[in-house]
Amino acid sequence: MTTISENDDVVTLINVFTVEPSDQQRLVDLLVTATEEVMRHRPGFVSANIHASFDGKRVVNYAQWESREDFEAIFEDDDVESHMTEIQAIADADYHLYEVNQIESS
Amino acid sequence: MTTISENDDVVTLINVFTVEPSDQQRLVDLLVTATEEVMRHRPGFVSANIHASFDGKRVVNYAQWESREDFEAIFEDDDVESHMTEIQAIADADYHLYEVNQIESS
Repeated sequence: MTTISENDDVVTLINVFTVEPSDQQRLVDLLVTATEEVMRHRPGFVSANIHASFDGKRVVNYAQWESREDFEAIFEDDDVESHMTEIQAIADADYHLYEVNQIESS
Repeated sequence: MTTISENDDVVTLINVFTVEPSDQQRLVDLLVTATEEVMRHRPGFVSANIHASFDGKRVVNYAQWESREDFEAIFEDDDVESHMTEIQAIADADYHLYEVNQIESS
């Protein structure tokens, strides 16, 4: 189970994919496969959570890595690149790295 | 502390704000104030987490509500509207409601 906390020593990747609703489930499946086959075995991987919007138009990967360097190193991995090519054929990705700036829970 | 789980009985709001880096901190402050003063007192509020991207260009609110109806009802609240007007003056918001489709933790 993933936890969100201002004090956790992780960096957060939020990758927002814009997709045609008819391709949303296929995109979720591709992201799950990429996570299971490649990402989770990379050094510094903490967690990944694939979210599907009810309106079919977005998929969000909310992921945590131990460091910015660990995340950036994935782009040098050929297996990552081949998964990304498949994903980018059906979706536009907007990813940024984040810190949790403020947390409010009831 | 917020937890992300496929089995939690919540709906997830992910609101992605595009902002000029010079306005990012002001946007974070406005979102924190709106959460503390209004959102957390609304029925069905579970949690909200404000994330600031390292590149200054995005702010993401990752929030959980008990139901879709609880979230949608906030738009009828005049206090919510006045906070939103201030926020939309400096940022573009792209929000969708999501379900957690898959979770992978190492």
